[in-house]
Amino acid sequence: MTATTDGLFIVFEGGDGAGKSTQSARLAQYLTSQGYAVRTTFEPGDTSVGATVRQIVLHSDVPVSPRAETLLYAVDKAQHVEDVIKPALEAQMVVICDRYVDSTIAYQGAGRVLSIDQVSRIAWWAVADLVPDLTVLMDVSVEEGVGSKRGHDRIEASGADFHERVRGHLLALAAAAPDRYLVVNGRAPKDEVTRLICDRVDQILDSGAHQLSRHSR
Amino acid sequence: MTATTDGLFIVFEGGDGAGKSTQSARLAQYLTSQGYAVRTTFEPGDTSVGATVRQIVLHSDVPVSPRAETLLYAVDKAQHVEDVIKPALEAQMVVICDRYVDSTIAYQGAGRVLSIDQVSRIAWWAVADLVPDLTVLMDVSVEEGVGSKRGHDRIEASGADFHERVRGHLLALAAAAPDRYLVVNGRAPKDEVTRLICDRVDQILDSGAHQLSRHSR
Repeated sequence: MTATTDGLFIVFEGGDGAGKSTQSARLAQYLTSQGYAVRTTFEPGDTSVGATVRQIVLHSDVPVSPRAETLLYAVDKAQHVEDVIKPALEAQMVVICDRYVDSTIAYQGAGRVLSIDQVSRIAWWAVADLVPDLTVLMDVSVEEGVGSKRGHDRIEASGADFHERVRGHLLALAAAAPDRYLVVNGRAPKDEVTRLICDRVDQILDSGAHQLSRHSR
Repeated sequence: MTATTDGLFIVFEGGDGAGKSTQSARLAQYLTSQGYAVRTTFEPGDTSVGATVRQIVLHSDVPVSPRAETLLYAVDKAQHVEDVIKPALEAQMVVICDRYVDSTIAYQGAGRVLSIDQVSRIAWWAVADLVPDLTVLMDVSVEEGVGSKRGHDRIEASGADFHERVRGHLLALAAAAPDRYLVVNGRAPKDEVTRLICDRVDQILDSGAHQLSRHSR
């Protein structure tokens, strides 16, 4: 007998300008066309508390220390899992989330002055250890990614060294758990990227390990 | 040679209605009269980020999960240490703070559903392990404390069991480190309580372990 879990939790990670939005929208469309119930969401900001957090960390002039910033992202995650992700999974939906724990670890831990271990522990505590079934890492070189969309917020305003450390850390996380990650080249033709992602998700669906609500077509 | 540290960090803890405000104001007055530079402050809310956090956790109708709440208090602490407490200590002042890490551990850890160890680790990480030189625990029975000031916010609206667990945990923290705590009966005559607190602070000052800015009188 195979153990099954309710719902399917897919995360998109990668630098800004790597194509996360396009590809997650395409995956959502594909799965919906197959009759699955899909919930697309994002971090930070997809709850009331999260929207306040997003405002503080990304767009306000209020001073925020590195520790406070890490904790603010963790607040967003805790409320997001509680209000959005867990209920959707319990309703046997496919949840597709733009950024999750890896972003916090990479941006606050690898990119800044804090210990990766400690940032990682806080972020995973915030989400009560809810691990995604698949994380799609949209990888692009720092020049290609940052160049495509510049100066919108504090993080994008940081230097190339910072983005290089973030990228390296995301790739390291993926390399450490290949069964839970798919790394794709964000500069490959879009249709090719979409096919790679949908193929991998199809494999997971075919495994039968997930209890999913599905309308017949 | 005795190692000295810059500044002196004193915290007041205890349930609402235990007399923290009165006694911390009296201590500040006493130390000021002795020529010390004193900074009184409080948690949560004595920074811009902290004021937002205070608004969310204590007074808004926005849903906040237990983990998100713990992390919001930690955000407040991180910014408060960075912006207020550390600079004042570095300027060789006496910092007197109304509530600190112990409140988070007691209210979010002992009082609620979360692990005390984990809440404790997060709160201490937030403040970069800045331990007070003295914590004055103003102890009152739950009936006396809660009865004196009721229904102002979410925490005060919680039941007597909750307040009993909080009180028990604060007493346990004090019992575990008697050299860093002074437990006083919040229902004793005010002048007697003030004398106990000032005597203990005088002992610390006389030890010469703290480098403090002082005006001659």
